[in-house]
Amino acid sequence: METLSTHRAHGGAQGVHRHASAATGTEMTFSVFVPPHAEGARLPVVWYLSGLTCTHANVTEKGEFRRACAELGLIFVAPDTSPRGEGVADDPEGAYDFGLGAGFYVDATQPPFAAHYRMWSYVTEELPALIAAHFPADMARQSIMGHSMGGHGALTIGLTFPDRFRAVSAFAPIAAPARVPWGEKALAGYLGDDRTAWRAHDAVALIEDGARLPDLLVDQGDADPFLEEQLRTPLLEEACRAAGQKATIRMQPGYDHSYYFISTFMDEHLRWHADRLRAA
Amino acid sequence: METLSTHRAHGGAQGVHRHASAATGTEMTFSVFVPPHAEGARLPVVWYLSGLTCTHANVTEKGEFRRACAELGLIFVAPDTSPRGEGVADDPEGAYDFGLGAGFYVDATQPPFAAHYRMWSYVTEELPALIAAHFPADMARQSIMGHSMGGHGALTIGLTFPDRFRAVSAFAPIAAPARVPWGEKALAGYLGDDRTAWRAHDAVALIEDGARLPDLLVDQGDADPFLEEQLRTPLLEEACRAAGQKATIRMQPGYDHSYYFISTFMDEHLRWHADRLRAA
Repeated sequence: METLSTHRAHGGAQGVHRHASAATGTEMTFSVFVPPHAEGARLPVVWYLSGLTCTHANVTEKGEFRRACAELGLIFVAPDTSPRGEGVADDPEGAYDFGLGAGFYVDATQPPFAAHYRMWSYVTEELPALIAAHFPADMARQSIMGHSMGGHGALTIGLTFPDRFRAVSAFAPIAAPARVPWGEKALAGYLGDDRTAWRAHDAVALIEDGARLPDLLVDQGDADPFLEEQLRTPLLEEACRAAGQKATIRMQPGYDHSYYFISTFMDEHLRWHADRLRAA
Repeated sequence: METLSTHRAHGGAQGVHRHASAATGTEMTFSVFVPPHAEGARLPVVWYLSGLTCTHANVTEKGEFRRACAELGLIFVAPDTSPRGEGVADDPEGAYDFGLGAGFYVDATQPPFAAHYRMWSYVTEELPALIAAHFPADMARQSIMGHSMGGHGALTIGLTFPDRFRAVSAFAPIAAPARVPWGEKALAGYLGDDRTAWRAHDAVALIEDGARLPDLLVDQGDADPFLEEQLRTPLLEEACRAAGQKATIRMQPGYDHSYYFISTFMDEHLRWHADRLRAA
Protein backbone atom coordinates (compact mmCIF):
# COMPACT_ATOMS: atom_id res chain seq x y z
CA MET A 1 0.00 0.00 0.00
CA GLU A 2 1.33 3.40 -1.01
CA THR A 3 0.22 6.58 0.73
CA LEU A 4 -0.39 9.29 -1.86
CA SER A 5 -1.21 12.10 0.57
CA THR A 6 -1.98 12.74 4.18
CA HIS A 7 -3.35 15.91 5.78
CA ARG A 8 -3.95 16.68 9.41
CA ALA A 9 -7.64 17.46 9.90
CA HIS A 10 -9.85 17.77 12.97
CA GLY A 11 -7.03 16.40 15.09
CA GLY A 12 -6.75 13.22 13.00
CA ALA A 13 -5.28 12.30 9.64
CA GLN A 14 -7.00 12.26 6.24
CA GLY A 15 -5.05 9.93 3.97
CA VAL A 16 -5.33 8.82 0.36
CA HIS A 17 -3.79 5.45 -0.47
CA ARG A 18 -3.23 3.23 -3.50
CA HIS A 19 -2.59 -0.47 -3.85
CA ALA A 20 -2.50 -3.20 -6.48
CA SER A 21 -5.83 -4.97 -6.15
CA ALA A 22 -6.00 -8.71 -6.71
CA ALA A 23 -9.80 -8.51 -6.94
CA THR A 24 -9.92 -6.01 -9.80
CA GLY A 25 -6.50 -6.64 -11.31
CA THR A 26 -5.87 -2.89 -11.30
CA GLU A 27 -4.45 -0.29 -8.99
CA MET A 28 -7.15 1.03 -6.67
CA THR A 29 -7.20 4.31 -4.75
CA PHE A 30 -9.17 4.91 -1.54
CA SER A 31 -9.24 7.39 1.33
CA VAL A 32 -9.20 6.77 5.07
CA PHE A 33 -9.76 9.26 7.88
CA VAL A 34 -8.25 8.16 11.17
CA PRO A 35 -9.53 10.24 14.09
CA PRO A 36 -7.38 11.24 17.06
CA HIS A 37 -7.03 8.22 19.33
CA ALA A 38 -4.99 6.80 22.15
CA GLU A 39 -1.87 4.81 21.25
CA GLY A 40 -2.83 1.20 20.69
CA ALA A 41 -6.58 1.85 20.51
CA ARG A 42 -8.70 -0.02 17.95
CA LEU A 43 -11.51 2.04 16.44
CA PRO A 44 -14.81 1.21 14.73
CA VAL A 45 -14.89 1.51 10.94
CA VAL A 46 -17.55 3.27 8.87
CA TRP A 47 -17.61 2.36 5.17
CA TYR A 48 -18.89 4.98 2.75
CA LEU A 49 -19.75 3.88 -0.80
CA SER A 50 -20.00 6.64 -3.39
CA GLY A 51 -22.37 7.23 -6.28
CA LEU A 52 -22.11 7.34 -10.06
CA THR A 53 -19.13 9.28 -11.52
CA CYS A 54 -17.47 9.62 -8.10
CA THR A 55 -14.06 8.56 -6.87
CA HIS A 56 -12.91 8.51 -3.24
CA ALA A 57 -12.34 12.26 -3.59
CA ASN A 58 -15.93 13.52 -3.70
CA VAL A 59 -16.93 12.55 -0.19
CA THR A 60 -13.41 13.16 1.09
CA GLU A 61 -13.61 16.81 0.02
CA LYS A 62 -17.33 17.54 0.32
CA GLY A 63 -18.79 15.03 2.78
CA GLU A 64 -18.22 17.00 6.00
CA PHE A 65 -17.70 13.79 7.96
CA ARG A 66 -14.40 14.48 9.72
CA ARG A 67 -15.67 16.65 12.53
CA ALA A 68 -18.14 14.02 13.74
CA CYS A 69 -15.73 11.13 13.12
CA ALA A 70 -13.11 12.92 15.22
CA GLU A 71 -15.58 13.51 18.02
CA LEU A 72 -17.02 9.98 17.89
CA GLY A 73 -13.76 8.13 17.28
CA LEU A 74 -14.70 6.59 13.93
CA ILE A 75 -12.43 5.52 11.07
CA PHE A 76 -14.06 6.53 7.76
CA VAL A 77 -13.16 4.57 4.61
CA ALA A 78 -14.12 5.72 1.10
CA PRO A 79 -13.33 3.33 -1.80
CA ASP A 80 -13.45 4.17 -5.49
CA THR A 81 -16.56 3.25 -7.52
CA SER A 82 -14.97 1.08 -10.22
CA PRO A 83 -11.66 -0.27 -11.48
CA ARG A 84 -9.76 2.21 -13.65
CA GLY A 85 -6.72 2.30 -15.90
CA GLU A 86 -5.25 0.69 -19.00
CA GLY A 87 -7.33 -2.17 -20.35
CA VAL A 88 -10.38 -1.59 -18.15
CA ALA A 89 -13.52 -1.79 -20.32
CA ASP A 90 -15.90 1.17 -20.27
CA ASP A 91 -19.41 1.88 -21.50
CA PRO A 92 -19.21 1.65 -25.33
CA GLU A 93 -20.48 5.22 -25.58
CA GLY A 94 -18.66 6.48 -22.50
CA ALA A 95 -21.95 7.01 -20.63
CA TYR A 96 -21.67 8.08 -16.98
CA ASP A 97 -23.99 5.36 -15.69
CA PHE A 98 -22.06 2.23 -16.66
CA GLY A 99 -18.41 1.19 -16.71
CA LEU A 100 -15.84 3.62 -15.30
CA GLY A 101 -17.15 5.30 -12.15
CA ALA A 102 -20.18 3.00 -12.17
CA GLY A 103 -19.19 -0.44 -10.88
CA PHE A 104 -22.48 -0.91 -9.00
CA TYR A 105 -20.72 -2.99 -6.31
CA VAL A 106 -21.13 -6.32 -8.13
CA ASP A 107 -18.74 -8.98 -9.43
CA ALA A 108 -19.35 -8.90 -13.17
CA THR A 109 -19.82 -12.24 -14.94
CA GLN A 110 -20.14 -10.85 -18.47
CA PRO A 111 -17.30 -10.11 -20.89
CA PRO A 112 -15.52 -7.78 -21.19
CA PHE A 113 -16.42 -6.53 -17.70
CA ALA A 114 -15.78 -9.77 -15.77
CA ALA A 115 -12.03 -9.22 -16.13
CA HIS A 116 -11.85 -6.20 -13.79
CA TYR A 117 -15.30 -5.18 -12.51
CA ARG A 118 -15.21 -7.11 -9.23
CA MET A 119 -16.23 -4.36 -6.84
CA TRP A 120 -18.27 -6.73 -4.60
CA SER A 121 -15.19 -8.81 -3.80
CA TYR A 122 -13.05 -5.70 -3.57
CA VAL A 123 -15.29 -3.89 -1.08
CA THR A 124 -16.38 -6.90 0.98
CA GLU A 125 -13.13 -8.92 1.09
CA GLU A 126 -9.94 -7.39 -0.20
CA LEU A 127 -10.19 -3.82 1.07
CA PRO A 128 -11.41 -4.87 4.56
CA ALA A 129 -8.34 -7.11 4.89
CA LEU A 130 -6.11 -4.20 3.85
CA ILE A 131 -7.80 -1.85 6.32
CA ALA A 132 -7.43 -4.41 9.11
CA ALA A 133 -3.73 -4.80 8.33
CA HIS A 134 -2.73 -1.14 7.98
CA PHE A 135 -5.02 0.92 10.23
CA PRO A 136 -5.98 0.87 13.92
CA ALA A 137 -9.32 -0.72 13.05
CA ASP A 138 -11.56 -2.88 15.19
CA MET A 139 -13.08 -5.07 12.47
CA ALA A 140 -15.59 -6.46 14.96
CA ARG A 141 -17.23 -3.03 14.85
CA GLN A 142 -18.05 -2.03 11.28
CA SER A 143 -20.93 -0.13 9.71
CA ILE A 144 -21.74 0.91 6.16
CA MET A 145 -23.41 3.85 4.42
CA GLY A 146 -23.53 5.19 0.89
CA HIS A 147 -25.08 7.60 -1.58
CA SER A 148 -27.18 6.79 -4.66
CA MET A 149 -25.37 3.87 -6.40
CA GLY A 150 -23.34 3.67 -3.17
CA GLY A 151 -26.56 3.61 -1.16
CA HIS A 152 -27.52 0.59 -3.25
CA GLY A 153 -24.12 -0.89 -2.42
CA ALA A 154 -24.47 -0.20 1.30
CA LEU A 155 -27.96 -1.71 1.45
CA THR A 156 -27.17 -4.85 -0.55
CA ILE A 157 -23.88 -5.48 1.26
CA GLY A 158 -25.48 -4.74 4.63
CA LEU A 159 -28.37 -7.12 3.88
CA THR A 160 -25.92 -9.83 2.78
CA PHE A 161 -23.69 -9.51 5.87
CA PRO A 162 -26.07 -8.59 8.70
CA ASP A 163 -23.63 -9.95 11.29
CA ARG A 164 -20.73 -7.86 10.02
CA PHE A 165 -22.33 -4.41 9.96
CA ARG A 166 -23.85 -3.04 13.13
CA ALA A 167 -25.42 -0.13 11.29
CA VAL A 168 -26.54 0.42 7.70
CA SER A 169 -27.77 3.72 6.30
CA ALA A 170 -28.11 5.47 2.96
CA PHE A 171 -28.53 8.84 1.31
CA ALA A 172 -30.85 8.69 -1.71
CA PRO A 173 -30.11 5.03 -2.53
CA ILE A 174 -31.00 3.28 -5.77
CA ALA A 175 -33.38 1.13 -3.78
CA ALA A 176 -34.62 -1.25 -6.47
CA PRO A 177 -32.05 -1.32 -9.27
CA ALA A 178 -33.70 -4.27 -11.03
CA ARG A 179 -36.72 -2.06 -11.70
CA VAL A 180 -35.11 1.22 -12.85
CA PRO A 181 -33.18 2.29 -15.97
CA TRP A 182 -29.77 2.85 -14.26
CA GLY A 183 -29.94 -0.55 -12.59
CA GLU A 184 -31.37 -2.50 -15.51
CA LYS A 185 -28.55 -1.29 -17.73
CA ALA A 186 -25.87 -2.03 -15.14
CA LEU A 187 -27.13 -5.38 -13.91
CA ALA A 188 -27.71 -6.65 -17.45
CA GLY A 189 -24.29 -5.40 -18.54
CA TYR A 190 -22.40 -6.86 -15.58
CA LEU A 191 -24.50 -9.93 -14.69
CA GLY A 192 -26.31 -10.81 -17.94
CA ASP A 193 -29.96 -11.04 -18.83
CA ASP A 194 -31.08 -13.65 -16.29
CA ARG A 195 -32.91 -11.47 -13.82
CA THR A 196 -32.84 -14.08 -11.08
CA ALA A 197 -29.13 -13.29 -10.69
CA TRP A 198 -30.02 -9.65 -10.12
CA ARG A 199 -32.02 -10.25 -6.93
CA ALA A 200 -28.86 -10.55 -4.79
CA HIS A 201 -28.01 -7.00 -5.91
CA ASP A 202 -31.37 -5.31 -5.36
CA ALA A 203 -32.18 -4.17 -1.82
CA VAL A 204 -35.94 -4.43 -2.28
CA ALA A 205 -35.63 -7.95 -3.74
CA LEU A 206 -33.29 -9.02 -0.93
CA ILE A 207 -35.81 -7.88 1.68
CA GLU A 208 -38.62 -9.61 -0.24
CA ASP A 209 -36.48 -12.76 -0.28
CA GLY A 210 -36.03 -12.70 3.49
CA ALA A 211 -32.79 -10.77 4.16
CA ARG A 212 -32.98 -8.51 7.20
CA LEU A 213 -31.05 -5.75 8.93
CA PRO A 214 -31.14 -4.91 12.64
CA ASP A 215 -32.28 -1.42 11.64
CA LEU A 216 -32.06 0.98 8.70
CA LEU A 217 -31.80 4.76 8.27
CA VAL A 218 -32.45 6.40 4.89
CA ASP A 219 -32.64 10.09 3.98
CA GLN A 220 -34.04 11.15 0.62
CA GLY A 221 -34.53 14.68 -0.71
CA ASP A 222 -37.96 15.36 -2.16
CA ALA A 223 -36.41 17.73 -4.73
CA ASP A 224 -34.05 15.01 -5.95
CA PRO A 225 -34.45 14.88 -9.75
CA PHE A 226 -33.74 11.12 -9.77
CA LEU A 227 -36.26 10.18 -7.10
CA GLU A 228 -39.15 9.06 -9.26
CA GLU A 229 -37.40 7.29 -12.11
CA GLN A 230 -34.19 5.91 -10.59
CA LEU A 231 -34.29 5.84 -6.78
CA ARG A 232 -37.89 4.87 -6.02
CA THR A 233 -37.81 5.20 -2.26
CA PRO A 234 -41.48 4.19 -1.97
CA LEU A 235 -40.60 0.66 -3.14
CA LEU A 236 -38.15 0.38 -0.24
CA GLU A 237 -40.70 1.75 2.22
CA GLU A 238 -43.26 -0.77 0.98
CA ALA A 239 -40.82 -3.71 1.13
CA CYS A 240 -39.82 -2.80 4.70
CA ARG A 241 -43.45 -2.45 5.73
CA ALA A 242 -44.45 -5.78 4.14
CA ALA A 243 -41.47 -7.60 5.66
CA GLY A 244 -41.65 -6.02 9.10
CA GLN A 245 -38.14 -4.63 8.56
CA LYS A 246 -37.41 -1.90 11.11
CA ALA A 247 -36.53 1.25 9.16
CA THR A 248 -36.53 5.04 9.40
CA ILE A 249 -36.99 6.40 5.88
CA ARG A 250 -37.27 10.17 5.78
CA MET A 251 -38.27 12.47 2.93
CA GLN A 252 -36.32 15.72 3.39
CA PRO A 253 -38.16 18.71 1.95
CA GLY A 254 -36.29 20.78 -0.61
CA TYR A 255 -33.12 18.67 -0.74
CA ASP A 256 -31.65 17.45 -4.02
CA HIS A 257 -29.16 14.69 -4.95
CA SER A 258 -25.94 16.64 -4.29
CA TYR A 259 -23.28 16.72 -1.61
CA TYR A 260 -25.12 19.74 -0.18
CA PHE A 261 -27.80 17.22 0.77
CA ILE A 262 -25.39 14.50 1.94
CA SER A 263 -23.27 16.86 4.04
CA THR A 264 -26.39 18.20 5.74
CA PHE A 265 -27.37 14.79 7.11
CA MET A 266 -23.92 13.19 7.40
CA ASP A 267 -23.51 14.24 11.01
CA GLU A 268 -26.79 12.66 12.05
CA HIS A 269 -26.01 9.42 10.19
CA LEU A 270 -22.60 9.18 11.86
CA ARG A 271 -24.15 9.66 15.30
CA TRP A 272 -26.71 6.97 14.50
CA HIS A 273 -23.89 4.65 13.43
CA ALA A 274 -21.79 5.51 16.51
CA ASP A 275 -24.67 4.66 18.84
CA ARG A 276 -24.73 1.16 17.35
CA LEU A 277 -20.96 0.76 16.97
CA ARG A 278 -20.28 1.71 20.55
CA ALA A 279 -23.04 -0.42 22.06
CA ALA A 280 -21.73 -3.34 24.10
CA MET B 1 -27.79 39.50 -10.78
CA GLU B 2 -28.27 36.04 -12.20
CA THR B 3 -28.53 32.97 -9.96
CA LEU B 4 -26.50 30.14 -11.48
CA SER B 5 -27.42 27.47 -8.94
CA THR B 6 -29.04 27.04 -5.58
CA HIS B 7 -28.99 23.99 -3.30
CA ARG B 8 -30.78 23.41 -0.05
CA ALA B 9 -28.18 22.75 2.64
CA HIS B 10 -28.34 22.64 6.44
CA GLY B 11 -31.85 24.08 6.31
CA GLY B 12 -30.73 27.12 4.33
CA ALA B 13 -29.78 27.83 0.72
CA GLN B 14 -26.35 27.73 -0.89
CA GLY B 15 -26.44 29.90 -4.00
CA VAL B 16 -23.97 30.82 -6.73
CA HIS B 17 -24.61 34.10 -8.52
CA ARG B 18 -23.15 36.14 -11.36
CA HIS B 19 -23.37 39.82 -12.22
CA ALA B 20 -21.77 42.40 -14.49
CA SER B 21 -19.30 44.25 -12.28
CA ALA B 22 -18.76 47.96 -12.83
CA ALA B 23 -15.62 47.82 -10.65
CA THR B 24 -13.82 45.16 -12.69
CA GLY B 25 -15.59 45.65 -16.03
CA THR B 26 -16.15 41.89 -16.18
CA GLU B 27 -18.73 39.38 -15.11
CA MET B 28 -18.06 38.26 -11.54
CA THR B 29 -19.27 35.08 -9.84
CA PHE B 30 -19.70 34.68 -6.08
CA SER B 31 -21.45 32.37 -3.64
CA VAL B 32 -23.79 33.18 -0.75
CA PHE B 33 -25.11 30.86 1.93
CA VAL B 34 -28.31 32.11 3.53
CA PRO B 35 -29.14 30.22 6.72
CA PRO B 36 -32.67 29.33 7.78
CA HIS B 37 -34.30 32.46 9.19
CA ALA B 38 -37.63 34.01 10.09
CA GLU B 39 -39.48 35.88 7.36
CA GLY B 40 -38.33 39.48 7.31
CA ALA B 41 -35.26 38.88 9.50
CA ARG B 42 -31.97 40.65 8.71
CA LEU B 43 -28.88 38.57 9.35
CA PRO B 44 -25.21 39.36 9.99
CA VAL B 45 -22.82 38.87 7.07
CA VAL B 46 -19.48 37.03 7.18
CA TRP B 47 -17.13 37.76 4.27
CA TYR B 48 -14.69 35.03 3.29
CA LEU B 49 -11.80 35.96 0.98
CA SER B 50 -10.06 33.06 -0.76
CA GLY B 51 -6.43 32.36 -1.54
CA LEU B 52 -4.30 32.04 -4.66
CA THR B 53 -5.78 29.98 -7.53
CA CYS B 54 -9.20 29.79 -5.87
CA THR B 55 -12.63 30.85 -7.05
CA HIS B 56 -15.78 31.08 -4.91
CA ALA B 57 -16.09 27.30 -5.33
CA ASN B 58 -13.21 26.08 -3.15
CA VAL B 59 -14.57 27.28 0.18
CA THR B 60 -18.13 26.68 -0.94
CA GLU B 61 -17.40 22.98 -1.47
CA LYS B 62 -14.66 22.33 1.10
CA GLY B 63 -14.97 25.00 3.78
CA GLU B 64 -17.44 23.19 6.08
CA PHE B 65 -19.00 26.49 7.13
CA ARG B 66 -22.69 25.85 6.52
CA ARG B 67 -23.48 23.84 9.63
CA ALA B 68 -22.22 26.58 11.96
CA CYS B 69 -23.67 29.39 9.83
CA ALA B 70 -27.07 27.66 9.95
CA GLU B 71 -26.87 27.28 13.71
CA LEU B 72 -25.58 30.81 14.31
CA GLY B 73 -27.73 32.59 11.72
CA LEU B 74 -24.90 33.94 9.58
CA ILE B 75 -24.91 34.82 5.88
CA PHE B 76 -21.61 33.66 4.33
CA VAL B 77 -20.34 35.44 1.20
CA ALA B 78 -17.44 34.11 -0.90
CA PRO B 79 -16.24 36.33 -3.80
CA ASP B 80 -13.87 35.30 -6.59
CA THR B 81 -10.17 36.15 -6.30
CA SER B 82 -9.71 38.14 -9.53
CA PRO B 83 -11.51 39.37 -12.62
CA ARG B 84 -11.72 36.74 -15.37
CA GLY B 85 -12.71 36.48 -19.00
CA GLU B 86 -11.93 37.91 -22.43
CA GLY B 87 -9.40 40.72 -22.38
CA VAL B 88 -8.37 40.31 -18.73
CA ALA B 89 -4.58 40.46 -18.50
CA ASP B 90 -2.79 37.56 -16.83
CA ASP B 91 0.72 36.85 -15.61
CA PRO B 92 2.93 36.88 -18.73
CA GLU B 93 4.03 33.32 -17.95
CA GLY B 94 0.67 32.19 -16.61
CA ALA B 95 2.08 31.81 -13.09
CA TYR B 96 -0.40 30.91 -10.33
CA ASP B 97 0.68 33.75 -8.04
CA PHE B 98 -0.19 36.80 -10.14
CA GLY B 99 -3.00 37.75 -12.51
CA LEU B 100 -5.94 35.36 -12.84
CA GLY B 101 -6.88 33.88 -9.48
CA ALA B 102 -4.45 36.22 -7.74
CA GLY B 103 -5.96 39.71 -7.53
CA PHE B 104 -4.51 40.35 -4.04
CA TYR B 105 -7.52 42.53 -3.11
CA VAL B 106 -6.02 45.75 -4.48
CA ASP B 107 -7.05 48.30 -7.12
CA ALA B 108 -4.26 48.05 -9.67
CA THR B 109 -2.74 51.26 -10.94
CA GLN B 110 -0.33 49.72 -13.45
CA PRO B 111 -1.09 48.83 -17.07
CA PRO B 112 -2.35 46.44 -18.28
CA PHE B 113 -3.83 45.38 -14.91
CA ALA B 114 -5.45 48.70 -13.96
CA ALA B 115 -8.19 48.07 -16.52
CA HIS B 116 -9.84 45.17 -14.64
CA TYR B 117 -7.93 44.31 -11.46
CA ARG B 118 -9.98 46.39 -9.04
CA MET B 119 -10.70 43.79 -6.38
CA TRP B 120 -10.44 46.29 -3.49
CA SER B 121 -13.31 48.37 -4.87
CA TYR B 122 -15.19 45.25 -5.83
CA VAL B 123 -15.02 43.60 -2.42
CA THR B 124 -15.36 46.75 -0.27
CA GLU B 125 -17.95 48.69 -2.30
CA GLU B 126 -19.70 47.05 -5.20
CA LEU B 127 -20.35 43.58 -3.85
CA PRO B 128 -21.52 44.81 -0.42
CA ALA B 129 -24.10 47.00 -2.17
CA LEU B 130 -25.27 44.02 -4.20
CA ILE B 131 -25.50 41.83 -1.09
CA ALA B 132 -27.47 44.53 0.74
CA ALA B 133 -29.89 44.81 -2.18
CA HIS B 134 -30.53 41.13 -2.87
CA PHE B 135 -30.14 39.23 0.41
CA PRO B 136 -31.66 39.49 3.92
CA ALA B 137 -28.46 41.10 5.20
CA ASP B 138 -27.98 43.41 8.15
CA MET B 139 -25.08 45.47 6.81
CA ALA B 140 -24.59 47.04 10.24
CA ARG B 141 -23.31 43.64 11.34
CA GLN B 142 -20.46 42.47 9.11
CA SER B 143 -17.29 40.54 9.74
CA ILE B 144 -14.48 39.33 7.51
CA MET B 145 -12.14 36.34 7.32
CA GLY B 146 -9.90 34.80 4.70
CA HIS B 147 -7.19 32.31 3.84
CA SER B 148 -3.63 32.98 2.69
CA MET B 149 -3.93 35.76 0.04
CA GLY B 150 -7.51 36.10 1.31
CA GLY B 151 -6.20 36.32 4.87
CA HIS B 152 -4.11 39.24 3.66
CA GLY B 153 -7.28 40.71 2.14
CA ALA B 154 -9.30 40.22 5.32
CA LEU B 155 -6.62 41.80 7.50
CA THR B 156 -5.96 44.82 5.27
CA ILE B 157 -9.66 45.48 4.64
CA GLY B 158 -10.47 44.95 8.31
CA LEU B 159 -7.70 47.33 9.38
CA THR B 160 -8.90 49.94 6.87
CA PHE B 161 -12.57 49.75 7.92
CA PRO B 162 -12.46 49.02 11.66
CA ASP B 163 -15.95 50.45 12.12
CA ARG B 164 -17.48 48.26 9.45
CA PHE B 165 -16.24 44.85 10.58
CA ARG B 166 -17.02 43.68 14.08
CA ALA B 167 -14.70 40.70 13.74
CA VAL B 168 -11.62 39.98 11.64
CA SER B 169 -9.87 36.64 11.47
CA ALA B 170 -7.57 34.72 9.16
CA PHE B 171 -6.29 31.28 8.31
CA ALA B 172 -2.59 31.29 7.36
CA PRO B 173 -2.60 34.89 6.07
CA ILE B 174 0.13 36.50 3.98
CA ALA B 175 0.82 38.79 6.88
CA ALA B 176 3.50 41.04 5.42
CA PRO B 177 3.19 40.91 1.62
CA ALA B 178 5.63 43.80 1.10
CA ARG B 179 8.38 41.61 2.55
CA VAL B 180 7.76 38.26 0.83
CA PRO B 181 8.14 36.99 -2.76
CA TRP B 182 4.41 36.46 -3.49
CA GLY B 183 3.56 39.93 -2.24
CA GLU B 184 6.51 41.76 -3.76
CA LYS B 185 5.65 40.38 -7.17
CA ALA B 186 1.95 41.19 -6.84
CA LEU B 187 2.25 44.64 -5.26
CA ALA B 188 4.93 45.73 -7.77
CA GLY B 189 2.86 44.37 -10.66
CA TYR B 190 -0.41 45.94 -9.58
CA LEU B 191 0.75 49.09 -7.75
CA GLY B 192 4.18 49.85 -9.22
CA ASP B 193 7.61 50.07 -7.69
CA ASP B 194 6.96 52.84 -5.14
CA ARG B 195 6.87 50.82 -1.95
CA THR B 196 5.15 53.57 0.03
CA ALA B 197 1.99 52.74 -1.92
CA TRP B 198 2.27 49.16 -0.72
CA ARG B 199 1.89 49.95 2.98
CA ALA B 200 -1.90 50.31 2.70
CA HIS B 201 -1.95 46.69 1.49
CA ASP B 202 0.31 45.10 4.06
CA ALA B 203 -1.24 44.15 7.40
CA VAL B 204 2.00 44.46 9.36
CA ALA B 205 2.73 47.89 7.82
CA LEU B 206 -0.82 49.07 8.54
CA ILE B 207 -0.46 48.11 12.20
CA GLU B 208 2.95 49.79 12.33
CA ASP B 209 1.35 52.90 10.81
CA GLY B 210 -1.34 53.03 13.50
CA ALA B 211 -4.31 51.08 12.13
CA ARG B 212 -6.09 48.99 14.77
CA LEU B 213 -8.72 46.28 15.07
CA PRO B 214 -10.96 45.65 18.08
CA ASP B 215 -9.51 42.13 18.19
CA LEU B 216 -7.92 39.58 15.86
CA LEU B 217 -7.91 35.77 15.58
CA VAL B 218 -5.35 33.97 13.40
CA ASP B 219 -4.71 30.24 13.01
CA GLN B 220 -1.55 29.04 11.29
CA GLY B 221 -0.42 25.47 10.73
CA ASP B 222 3.16 24.77 11.74
CA ALA B 223 3.49 22.22 8.89
CA ASP B 224 2.42 24.83 6.32
CA PRO B 225 5.09 24.76 3.58
CA PHE B 226 4.60 28.50 2.93
CA LEU B 227 4.96 29.63 6.54
CA GLU B 228 8.58 30.69 6.56
CA GLU B 229 9.01 32.27 3.14
CA GLN B 230 5.57 33.68 2.27
CA LEU B 231 3.30 33.95 5.33
CA ARG B 232 5.68 35.03 8.10
CA THR B 233 3.28 34.88 11.01
CA PRO B 234 6.03 35.98 13.47
CA LEU B 235 6.12 39.43 11.82
CA LEU B 236 2.40 39.80 12.56
CA GLU B 237 2.87 38.62 16.15
CA GLU B 238 5.69 41.12 16.63
CA ALA B 239 3.73 44.01 15.07
CA CYS B 240 0.72 43.28 17.30
CA ARG B 241 2.93 43.06 20.38
CA ALA B 242 4.76 46.29 19.56
CA ALA B 243 1.52 48.15 18.83
CA GLY B 244 -0.48 46.76 21.72
CA GLN B 245 -2.94 45.28 19.20
CA LYS B 246 -5.14 42.67 20.90
CA ALA B 247 -4.68 39.41 19.01
CA THR B 248 -4.87 35.65 19.39
CA ILE B 249 -2.38 34.10 16.98
CA ARG B 250 -2.17 30.34 17.27
CA MET B 251 0.33 27.91 15.79
CA GLN B 252 -1.55 24.67 15.12
CA PRO B 253 0.72 21.64 15.27
CA GLY B 254 0.78 19.39 12.21
CA TYR B 255 -1.59 21.43 10.05
CA ASP B 256 -0.71 22.45 6.50
CA HIS B 257 -2.03 25.12 4.08
CA SER B 258 -5.01 23.14 2.73
CA TYR B 259 -8.76 23.15 3.20
CA TYR B 260 -8.25 20.25 5.61
CA PHE B 261 -6.68 22.87 7.87
CA ILE B 262 -9.25 25.59 7.16
CA SER B 263 -12.26 23.32 7.65
CA THR B 264 -10.87 22.12 10.98
CA PHE B 265 -10.88 25.63 12.47
CA MET B 266 -13.75 27.17 10.47
CA ASP B 267 -16.31 26.31 13.12
CA GLU B 268 -14.34 28.00 15.88
CA HIS B 269 -13.74 31.13 13.77
CA LEU B 270 -17.44 31.39 12.96
CA ARG B 271 -18.38 31.12 16.64
CA TRP B 272 -15.82 33.80 17.46
CA HIS B 273 -17.34 36.02 14.75
CA ALA B 274 -20.88 35.29 15.91
CA ASP B 275 -20.06 36.31 19.49
CA ARG B 276 -19.02 39.72 18.16
CA LEU B 277 -21.73 40.05 15.51
CA ARG B 278 -24.50 39.28 17.95
CA ALA B 279 -23.25 41.53 20.75
CA ALA B 280 -25.47 44.56 21.37
